[in-house]
Amino acid sequence: MKKVDIKYLYENKESLSQDVIVVAGWVKSCRGNGNFGFIDLTDGTCFKTLQIVFSKDKLANYDVVEKVNTGSSIMCKGKIVLTPENKQPFEMQADEVIIINATDSEYPLQKKRHNVEFLREIAYLRPRTNLFQAVFRVRSVAAMAIHDYFQSNGYLYVNTPLITTTDCEGSDQMFKITKLNFNNLPLDKDGKVDMGEDLFGKQAYITGSGQLHGEAFALAFNKIYTFGPTFRTENSNTKTHANEFWMIEPEMAFCDLEELMNVEEEMLKHVVKYVLDKCPDELEFLDKFVSNGLLDKLNKLVTSRFTRIDHADVIKLLQQADVEWEFQPEEGGDIAKEHEKYLTEYFNGPVFVKNWPKDIKAYYMKLNPDGKTVAAVDLEVPGAGELMGGSQREEDYQKIIARCDEMGVDKETIDWYLNLRKFGSCVHSGFGMGFERLVMYLTGIENIRDAIPFPRTPNNCEF
Amino acid sequence: MKKVDIKYLYENKESLSQDVIVVAGWVKSCRGNGNFGFIDLTDGTCFKTLQIVFSKDKLANYDVVEKVNTGSSIMCKGKIVLTPENKQPFEMQADEVIIINATDSEYPLQKKRHNVEFLREIAYLRPRTNLFQAVFRVRSVAAMAIHDYFQSNGYLYVNTPLITTTDCEGSDQMFKITKLNFNNLPLDKDGKVDMGEDLFGKQAYITGSGQLHGEAFALAFNKIYTFGPTFRTENSNTKTHANEFWMIEPEMAFCDLEELMNVEEEMLKHVVKYVLDKCPDELEFLDKFVSNGLLDKLNKLVTSRFTRIDHADVIKLLQQADVEWEFQPEEGGDIAKEHEKYLTEYFNGPVFVKNWPKDIKAYYMKLNPDGKTVAAVDLEVPGAGELMGGSQREEDYQKIIARCDEMGVDKETIDWYLNLRKFGSCVHSGFGMGFERLVMYLTGIENIRDAIPFPRTPNNCEF
Repeated sequence: MKKVDIKYLYENKESLSQDVIVVAGWVKSCRGNGNFGFIDLTDGTCFKTLQIVFSKDKLANYDVVEKVNTGSSIMCKGKIVLTPENKQPFEMQADEVIIINATDSEYPLQKKRHNVEFLREIAYLRPRTNLFQAVFRVRSVAAMAIHDYFQSNGYLYVNTPLITTTDCEGSDQMFKITKLNFNNLPLDKDGKVDMGEDLFGKQAYITGSGQLHGEAFALAFNKIYTFGPTFRTENSNTKTHANEFWMIEPEMAFCDLEELMNVEEEMLKHVVKYVLDKCPDELEFLDKFVSNGLLDKLNKLVTSRFTRIDHADVIKLLQQADVEWEFQPEEGGDIAKEHEKYLTEYFNGPVFVKNWPKDIKAYYMKLNPDGKTVAAVDLEVPGAGELMGGSQREEDYQKIIARCDEMGVDKETIDWYLNLRKFGSCVHSGFGMGFERLVMYLTGIENIRDAIPFPRTPNNCEF
Repeated sequence: MKKVDIKYLYENKESLSQDVIVVAGWVKSCRGNGNFGFIDLTDGTCFKTLQIVFSKDKLANYDVVEKVNTGSSIMCKGKIVLTPENKQPFEMQADEVIIINATDSEYPLQKKRHNVEFLREIAYLRPRTNLFQAVFRVRSVAAMAIHDYFQSNGYLYVNTPLITTTDCEGSDQMFKITKLNFNNLPLDKDGKVDMGEDLFGKQAYITGSGQLHGEAFALAFNKIYTFGPTFRTENSNTKTHANEFWMIEPEMAFCDLEELMNVEEEMLKHVVKYVLDKCPDELEFLDKFVSNGLLDKLNKLVTSRFTRIDHADVIKLLQQADVEWEFQPEEGGDIAKEHEKYLTEYFNGPVFVKNWPKDIKAYYMKLNPDGKTVAAVDLEVPGAGELMGGSQREEDYQKIIARCDEMGVDKETIDWYLNLRKFGSCVHSGFGMGFERLVMYLTGIENIRDAIPFPRTPNNCEF
C-alpha cells in the first residue's frame, strides 16, 4: 500500500475518497475520550493538516495512541472519508495507528504558542511550528519564483565565487579564511604572518558581493543573475543585520538605468504574484497572526505603479514635509529609515529613488553628465524600506580609473574588472536584492533571524 | 526602435522578416572586400550568432567597420531578411553600424581556438568563447532543471548555513574564518589564541556539507533539498578537486534506501532530459569538439535501467573479472576509479552500489541488520564515475550514539543533530551530488576548473 502525502490528498480528495491509504507524519495534537479520539497530523508536505479519527473498537493499541504526545512520529492506515460539513473537507478513519517514535516531556515544543526568542534557541526544531512552516515555505517558493523569472527571461544563472581576493565592498567588511593553525602561524622575515604559506598562497576572504564577477559574465552572456550567500563582518545586533545572508545580483549588458528599473519592477511583481498563487494557506496564516494587512499589501503591489523620482527631488519633498524629522534631510545626503517610510506612504506604493549624490555611492557607478550625481537607484517598498539597490555601471575606462583614484580604491586587485572597460565595454546595469529582506517583506516577519533557517549574528553561531 | 535579442530573433524569425530592428552585441569575426562585408555577431543570449551584411553604399563609416576587431561591442540597425538557402536561416542587412567600444591588439581573445590552460588565466574573458558559452549555459540550465525537479515534486528548498561550528565532514577539512587581525591576535591566560574575542565568540568554519541541517528540516518539511556552495581545504591538484564547489543535498523523511535510489534515478533522468531539450546547440557543439558521443551517452541515460547491486557482490564480480587491476578489489574495501569504470561498462549503464562495509563509511549511516554493512549507496555513471553518494540515516538514538563512540565522533557539537533521533525520529534518507561533477558529466569536459566560473584550487584564487 502506497504512502500518500497530505498535500496530494488535498489535491486529489475526491478521487481518493473511500480509498484505504497510508499516511506518515507527526502529531500536532491528540485528544480522546476513552472510546474514540482525534489526531491532528502534519507530514510537512503542506501547511494543512489531516484529521485522523481513531476508536477503541478498531485499534488494539487505543490506550497508547490516545496518550501520544505532540511531535511523535506515527504511521496511520485507514479510509479517506469526505466530510464537507466539517472544518476540514475530509478525514481518515484509522484502521491502524503505529507509533514510530514517541516524544516525552523532554520535547521542547508543546501545543501552545511559543515566542520567537525561545524558538531561536531551538532553531533545529522551530521549522515544525506553524510560524516557521509558513515562513520557510514562502522562502522556498520565493526562491523558485526568482529562478523562474530570470530563466524564463533568458538570464544565465552564474555561481560567482565565494572565496575571493577581490571584493566589491572592501576587505575590512570581509571574513578572512585560512587553513593555517592560529597557534602556530608561519612568519616571514619581518616577523609578520606569512600568508604565502596558506592554501591559496595569499590572504583570501569570503565574499560580500558577486557583482564584479557578475559584470564579467554579463559582458559575455548579456543577461545574468547570481543567487548565493554573502557575508559581512558587521558587529551589529539589529533586526535587519545578519553576518550571513543570500543575495540576488542580476547584471544586464546594453541596459541603462530606466531599463534597470523596469527589470526590478517586473521581477518583484512576478515574485509576489507567484508566492500569492502558491502559498495561499501560508500567507493567510501570516496575515492573521503575524502581520495584519499582509495580503492586502502584496495584492496591491502587483498592480501598483512604481514611482520614479530623483534623489534631489526627494530631499526637497522631505524638507517641505510637515514632519519633525529625527535626521534632517539634506542636499547631497543619505535618506534615513523614517524618510523611506514617509516616501512609500506619500506615493502610496513602491518608490525608485534615482540619481544619487556621487560622494555617498560606490566608485563603479556611472557618473551622470552633471558631474555630481551617479546613475544609482534604490527601491523603497511599503513596510520594508530599501529592498533593492542598483546602478548603471561606469563603462568608460578613463572615468572609472579617475573615480578609483578619487576614492582611494586599490586598482591592483581589480585590474581584470577595470579591463572589462577596454574589451567590448558597453552601457550595463545591475542591482542587488537581499533575499532575507524580500522574505521579510513577503511574510511580514520583523526580525531577520526569523527569515533564515540558522541565522548567524555576532556571538551567535549555534547549530 | 526596440533592441531585439538574437535568441528572440531565432524564435520569431518568420514574423520579424523584413522588419527593421536594432541588435547590440560583440563581434566574433568580420571580413570585407572594400565594397561589402560580413560581421558574425553574438549577443550572448543564445549559442547561435547573427550574420550582419554591410556595404559601402549604405555605411558612411564602412572603412572603420570593415576593420573592427573581434570582441568589439557594436550596435546595428537593419532589415531582417530570410536566407533559407544559406547556413544561417536569416541575416541582417545593415543600414547603420555603430562601434561602441573597439578592442585593439591588446585583447587576449582572437578568432582562433585557444587552449583551456590559457583560457583559465583569463577566466574573466573566457565566458566569451564558444566552449564556455556552451559549458556555462548548460550549467545554468542544469541548475534550473534541479530546482524544477524538486519544487514540482513538493520539496522545500532550504538554505543551510555556510558559517558553522558543527560539520558533517570533520573540522580538519574546513576553512577557519575570522575577523581577527593575524598580526595582533588576542591571547588567553595560557598564551593560546583566544577565539572568544572573535565575532562569533568561538572558532567558526565555512561548511563542507549542509546534510545535518538538512535532516532537521526534513523532519519538519518531509522532503527538502539544499543547493549551495561547500568548501574543502584539500591540498590536491587533480582534475576533479576544487576547494569551492556547489552541492545539492536532498533529504527525505519516511524514505528508505530503495526509495532513495528511486529519487536519485528519477532526478538525474529529469535533469538530463531538461538539458537535452533546452541546450541542443550547446550539446551539439560539445559533442563535436569536446566529447564525441556525448549526445548518445545522454540520450541513452534517459531510457537506461539503473542497476542496483550490493557492494559485496560488486567485489566478487570484480575479483572474477578477467582484468589486471591496479588496486585489487577486496571484501570490505573501497572501490577504485578503474572498478567504477568497469562496472558501468559491464552493466552498460548507471550502477547503484549499495550496502557498504560500515568501517569505510560515516557514523550517521543506518546500520544494517547484519551488523557489518550500512545502508549507503553510491551512484556510478558511465564516463564520470561516482556522481552521487547517499544513505539511509541512522534514526535510532542509542545506535547512533554507539556509532559516534565507536568512531570517535565528538558528540558535543552535534548534540542537537543527535536529539533529532529522540523527537519524532523516523526512517529517513538523503544524498549529495556535486554540481560540478554533474556539469562535467553533462558537457563532457574533463577538468573541474572548466566547469566553474572562477575556480578555486590550491595556490589559485585569482579574480
